[in-house]
Amino acid sequence: MIPHTTLDVSGDRFTVIYRIAGSREDAVARAQHICIEQTVEFPARYVHDDDIRKHVFGRVESQIVAVEDSWEARISYAVEVTGFQLPQLLNVIFGNISLVPGVRVRSLEIPESLARHFRGPRFGRTGLRKLFNAPKGPLYCSALKPMGLPAGELAEQAYQFALGGIHIIKDDHGLGNQPFAPFRERVPLCVQAVERANRETGGSARYAPSINSCGEQFFEDARWAKAEGAGALLVAPGLVGWDIMRAIADDDSVGRPILCHPAFVGAMSSSVTSGFSHGALYGQLVRLAGGDVSIYPNFGGRFSFTIEQCREIAAACRAPMSGIKTIFPAPGGGMDFDNVPEMAEAYGDEVMYLIGGALHQGGATVAENSRRLRAIAERGRLE
Amino acid sequence: MIPHTTLDVSGDRFTVIYRIAGSREDAVARAQHICIEQTVEFPARYVHDDDIRKHVFGRVESQIVAVEDSWEARISYAVEVTGFQLPQLLNVIFGNISLVPGVRVRSLEIPESLARHFRGPRFGRTGLRKLFNAPKGPLYCSALKPMGLPAGELAEQAYQFALGGIHIIKDDHGLGNQPFAPFRERVPLCVQAVERANRETGGSARYAPSINSCGEQFFEDARWAKAEGAGALLVAPGLVGWDIMRAIADDDSVGRPILCHPAFVGAMSSSVTSGFSHGALYGQLVRLAGGDVSIYPNFGGRFSFTIEQCREIAAACRAPMSGIKTIFPAPGGGMDFDNVPEMAEAYGDEVMYLIGGALHQGGATVAENSRRLRAIAERGRLE
Repeated sequence: MIPHTTLDVSGDRFTVIYRIAGSREDAVARAQHICIEQTVEFPARYVHDDDIRKHVFGRVESQIVAVEDSWEARISYAVEVTGFQLPQLLNVIFGNISLVPGVRVRSLEIPESLARHFRGPRFGRTGLRKLFNAPKGPLYCSALKPMGLPAGELAEQAYQFALGGIHIIKDDHGLGNQPFAPFRERVPLCVQAVERANRETGGSARYAPSINSCGEQFFEDARWAKAEGAGALLVAPGLVGWDIMRAIADDDSVGRPILCHPAFVGAMSSSVTSGFSHGALYGQLVRLAGGDVSIYPNFGGRFSFTIEQCREIAAACRAPMSGIKTIFPAPGGGMDFDNVPEMAEAYGDEVMYLIGGALHQGGATVAENSRRLRAIAERGRLE
Repeated sequence: MIPHTTLDVSGDRFTVIYRIAGSREDAVARAQHICIEQTVEFPARYVHDDDIRKHVFGRVESQIVAVEDSWEARISYAVEVTGFQLPQLLNVIFGNISLVPGVRVRSLEIPESLARHFRGPRFGRTGLRKLFNAPKGPLYCSALKPMGLPAGELAEQAYQFALGGIHIIKDDHGLGNQPFAPFRERVPLCVQAVERANRETGGSARYAPSINSCGEQFFEDARWAKAEGAGALLVAPGLVGWDIMRAIADDDSVGRPILCHPAFVGAMSSSVTSGFSHGALYGQLVRLAGGDVSIYPNFGGRFSFTIEQCREIAAACRAPMSGIKTIFPAPGGGMDFDNVPEMAEAYGDEVMYLIGGALHQGGATVAENSRRLRAIAERGRLE
């Protein structure tokens, strides 16, 4: 028997739209289950406190509706149950219910009363365009690879990319602190290489090291990289934690654009009946967690996202979200020159092209290949 | 054209066993794709450096074999590509390939040369038995809930559980820093309540607060909770990051047993063709990341794990792993007294029963219900 308590709640609620598999009857029951599972996790029959029932339980906001071959339920939660912190917000959205197949997060509706607790992307689309003095047109990103090269050779690549007009030259996300090109050796060399190219071109290319460190070292490495002159940071929230990315984005002593990499989170979007929709995961969640750029595998490459899923991500990157800034989608993954015209058509100008391996193909320097990429993207056709 | 470099590699390799869907031909090609995707992420035809091809690429170690309705491939990686750090180890195991449906991690084979870089669980099964002076028989865990109660009432529950012989009384994992029972108010009250019960019973029950904080605050809160007398810590790596859990487990200034909660990671195991097997995720990965106890939803409750999946987790918790300690499986999730006999049969004595809501049922105090749970589990039948 739970005695009475008076709850400190504002009445403001946020909403998660879930897709639920099964019969209508199952889906109605599952929606009720979600309301309990994501909040009190307690047999509802043992909760005798009206305030908890009314304010802490999730609430099904309207009748479930049939969508495609499943059901859609709108469930709202008091903003206070999140404690206004990202880990607990993730927990309310999809914590325990992640363990129940047949429930997928379709999208989030975050009111201003919750959004104002999240800084979101520090720069966003507009901020990045200012940094790169690129008021319109697409932006370009490439990656230093393959792992195994010494730091000096990766830095030479960085120089070539910057010379060729690539805006952000990022570490391959697998570059950590391997003996081949240790982090503290690699970062200054790549920073200097990009600065050298900028001096020659008058450009404003930026190097983004991969911050893939351990525990508290993560924060130290991010601050150190900033002090060394890194112009942006690459973070994979699946590897280091969503809130760790958020913390680095929010940290005024870092203050660098964040490129969000999807490593390790793919299984959260690959099932049609569990996890998150592509827009919710690679768009909305990335923005809540402070990413300025959302990297994801483009359609038509060596991964399996469809053009519709990719368009959904791009749309979620720029949809209004109670004041949380819009960001750049950065499709990549096995893209070659041939893919660029269809990318131009799918994404228009509000995109950051992420093209890696293809810029190393022979017969031309990396800088020449980079210029060719830009020319194709800006023309929208191959030649 | 990638020039020659001399690589600093030992020749030691670790192995990931992947399940791959599709035809035999597809699976053979996919296995080769994994070798590249998880390491250099670079068109193999552009890598002309024999050392990188030989040492950095993943390697298919034997012919793929048909298993159930898919294929099993053994792929090894040089231990150096992990940089001997957990985020990059996760990345090599399943980073980019998480974005390709049809690839599932079946199990990991970690040699001593890699394992020695990971402390793993600080206490493990043997260490916990010593802490609780419980050389044999099952251990017991329960949770303070529902969210919405004030801290004083949660502390009263903690007292009752400890009085009833529960070894670890944990916060419900959704308890963060909500206004209802703020973290800094809740932790000392619950610590004191459990200490009071221990004085009365002569027992050694421990309170495990949920450390579900933001960024660097996470570390501060864990150390503060330890200083306040928390006897263990509850961490959900899906919410805060796998390596954050590892860092807290490794931190000598904390030095408390870690209960690992599966919130948010369920979608990583729910598809049969993506993510991780139950044993790899809730057993092997939890141990690598320092969990002393692995919480997961038991068969027969409100989740959907099968008895086979649960047995696989329990087996992975106690299988040899190059010196990384064995841990307690802690099945829970909607368990009631009726479920206990079948749990006793499935798990034997090497288990920590996690039973929450059922201990609040009327007609008896929480302490009395706790004693009843222990009696049923130790008898192996209801009455």
